[in-house]
Amino acid sequence: MTEPMPNAYVPGKGALAPAEAALVERRLRLLGPAYRLFYETPVHLVRGEGVWLYDPEGNAYLDTYNNVASVGHSHPHVVAAMARQAGTLASHTRYLHETILDYSERLLATFPAPLEHVMFTCTGSEANDLALRIARHRTGGTGVIVTENAYHGVTLAVSTISPSLGPGVPSADWVRVIPPPDPRRLGPDTGAAFADEVRRAIAELTAAGIRPAALIVDTIFSSDGVFAAPEGLLAPAAEAIRAAGGLFIADEVQPGFGRTGTAMWGFQRHGVVPDMVSLGKPMGNGYPVAALVLCPEVVADFGARGRYFNTFGGNAVAAAVAAAVLDVIETEGLQENALRTGARFAEALQSLAARHDALGQIRGAGLFLGVDIVTEGAPDSALAARVVNDLRAARVLISATGPAAHVLKIRPPLVFDRDHADLFCERLDTVLTVLGR
Amino acid sequence: MTEPMPNAYVPGKGALAPAEAALVERRLRLLGPAYRLFYETPVHLVRGEGVWLYDPEGNAYLDTYNNVASVGHSHPHVVAAMARQAGTLASHTRYLHETILDYSERLLATFPAPLEHVMFTCTGSEANDLALRIARHRTGGTGVIVTENAYHGVTLAVSTISPSLGPGVPSADWVRVIPPPDPRRLGPDTGAAFADEVRRAIAELTAAGIRPAALIVDTIFSSDGVFAAPEGLLAPAAEAIRAAGGLFIADEVQPGFGRTGTAMWGFQRHGVVPDMVSLGKPMGNGYPVAALVLCPEVVADFGARGRYFNTFGGNAVAAAVAAAVLDVIETEGLQENALRTGARFAEALQSLAARHDALGQIRGAGLFLGVDIVTEGAPDSALAARVVNDLRAARVLISATGPAAHVLKIRPPLVFDRDHADLFCERLDTVLTVLGR
Repeated sequence: MTEPMPNAYVPGKGALAPAEAALVERRLRLLGPAYRLFYETPVHLVRGEGVWLYDPEGNAYLDTYNNVASVGHSHPHVVAAMARQAGTLASHTRYLHETILDYSERLLATFPAPLEHVMFTCTGSEANDLALRIARHRTGGTGVIVTENAYHGVTLAVSTISPSLGPGVPSADWVRVIPPPDPRRLGPDTGAAFADEVRRAIAELTAAGIRPAALIVDTIFSSDGVFAAPEGLLAPAAEAIRAAGGLFIADEVQPGFGRTGTAMWGFQRHGVVPDMVSLGKPMGNGYPVAALVLCPEVVADFGARGRYFNTFGGNAVAAAVAAAVLDVIETEGLQENALRTGARFAEALQSLAARHDALGQIRGAGLFLGVDIVTEGAPDSALAARVVNDLRAARVLISATGPAAHVLKIRPPLVFDRDHADLFCERLDTVLTVLGR
Repeated sequence: MTEPMPNAYVPGKGALAPAEAALVERRLRLLGPAYRLFYETPVHLVRGEGVWLYDPEGNAYLDTYNNVASVGHSHPHVVAAMARQAGTLASHTRYLHETILDYSERLLATFPAPLEHVMFTCTGSEANDLALRIARHRTGGTGVIVTENAYHGVTLAVSTISPSLGPGVPSADWVRVIPPPDPRRLGPDTGAAFADEVRRAIAELTAAGIRPAALIVDTIFSSDGVFAAPEGLLAPAAEAIRAAGGLFIADEVQPGFGRTGTAMWGFQRHGVVPDMVSLGKPMGNGYPVAALVLCPEVVADFGARGRYFNTFGGNAVAAAVAAAVLDVIETEGLQENALRTGARFAEALQSLAARHDALGQIRGAGLFLGVDIVTEGAPDSALAARVVNDLRAARVLISATGPAAHVLKIRPPLVFDRDHADLFCERLDTVLTVLGR
């Protein structure tokens, strides 16, 4: 039996053209059994531009899902910066080089004090893994608290704090899970109730003789189902873990870099300053660069007694590419666009929900939206899968998330505009109408 | 107190020009205390080409150390492939794309059966970390055996199997270390003796109630001191770990991709087929791409019960860049060059050793050489540090390795030719002559 993954291709289920069937066969032979494709009929891509992806026949797919190409697929300013720096020097951090320092200064200027240091890795997994190493060193504890369907990465350590990877991935005895805030029962006490869950987990760890090291939270609960409200909810939880000697780590790999619209970082919507912040996916628009931003006191002893070197992390090309991404976010006003287009997109979805019972609660911040797919108000993962695959047939790319895989996860490149949002809604309208839902 | 790292910059020790002193200050302020620079007087780089690196004044440094830029710094063929693919599409592995499959086919053709699958990561650390996850799943064990001064990476898990990171990095209770073969006492029994050490470590693990999962070895013992002889030495050790139900993992992050001259992969010199092989540093000539090559049966159940997805790992740009690196290795005959130039380089060093007592044993394979720096035959780490820093002043970049940091680690880009080797020897001659050694 294969483990369940939302929107995974299941061999034999969808109809594949011979060319694509041959690619699927080659993948299995070459990459082995641990790789998964999206969709009943996987998508074969050859080109990308802005919010559009193209197959070999030249068909255009509206990309409503891929947050990595945050400033748009194949953005020429980013590609030019990459080629220029790669053609000049790709040095690492054991030699002096300005590029990484110039970028670090710009990046850190977007963070509140005392988040004043940045350490570079290649992936969000490595950033969260480093956060765990530093949290253990700093606190002397090992216990980590995460939400029930969290995803924080794929290293041996962080895969054990990623329950969304399913029962096939072993959990560690130093991990405790807590329920995320229920988006259907929000109120003035939501933040306090979430902090109570943190305290309950701390008590469980303590009772088991495990000292707490950290609470780590994706600040928009991406894989739990996209929960953006209420603002301020994370502050009491951060207080709770700190009171127990642990650190509060904000995972910004998905919500970061302006996507939530009102702020550059998701944690800023919650009135809290984390001890560490991990960054990843959109940081290099596809180039493998990620980072951990930290308060100096958290890393002081770790840095004095040990060292951290990541061969490719923070190399000159990574820094040049990441700087080009910041350029585009600024010059094209992408954070403002996320706020404006996201609000418009959410409204359009609300109008659609008035006509389609299958659309339940619509949540989110900026261009990170979650839409519950329901039947008589209850989560319907089979229907969500149907909608995702029918949208794929209508050349709109999207996927589902959450423990029941019933939440449409809308997370397009930030160059998504009002027309794209309208097109998405139009095609979703058609899909639901055909399904009679 | 700061932990010891061979060839680390120690603030206040070297003389820095004002511009470089300012960069050092900015680094500490922005990157924090865990970053280390090389050399008493750190090198400030702005450009690279072939085997040459340049500082802002245009001074050229002969690069005898950086194996990442394996086909030469800023190689135009690799840069062009990167720019072309990044300007077209940087898709991930949940969509179908030919580039990764074409590359996988070429890469796997360089491995003996049954090493028939490849999984992509961004760093060698991630590749070794994934190897540990798979080894644990496959064997049901957790115990790992490594050599005394091994380096396998920086994730939480693999940093604990990297004793070369020093006492500041906690080791795990499931790790046992064994001495590498002593290069001064080689004989017909060296392989058997090394296997005996593996069996001793297995017995220790078993006595502690820990089931062995893997023996992982850098196939040229890069951080133990560069031990290439005798050929065949790893085969009995691999047999020993397999007899105990564990796997044999070859870490090719440093020796791989033709560097050892006689073969594409270091393990091939030892007449053994590993269960898993990790690749990294030179794979993308600086672009963050790495991989784990595996026997199908090792990953069958892991892949059926779980999944592996690395957002940037094996993206279309990574695959295009890695393919361009293979192009250059083939068209420029770099494996043959490693063999030829490496042999000539070793001979020239031997001649030099006849005139300088400071040069002890000279070892290696292809363009991966180790030279002991000794005083009256005994390891002299202070002298090695002096030689490394004096060579830096003479604009030759090199570093030291081994538990006593007394081994010059010679690991240049593979486009290093006979003239470069002669230039290195000439400058080393001068440095030693000035030192009266």
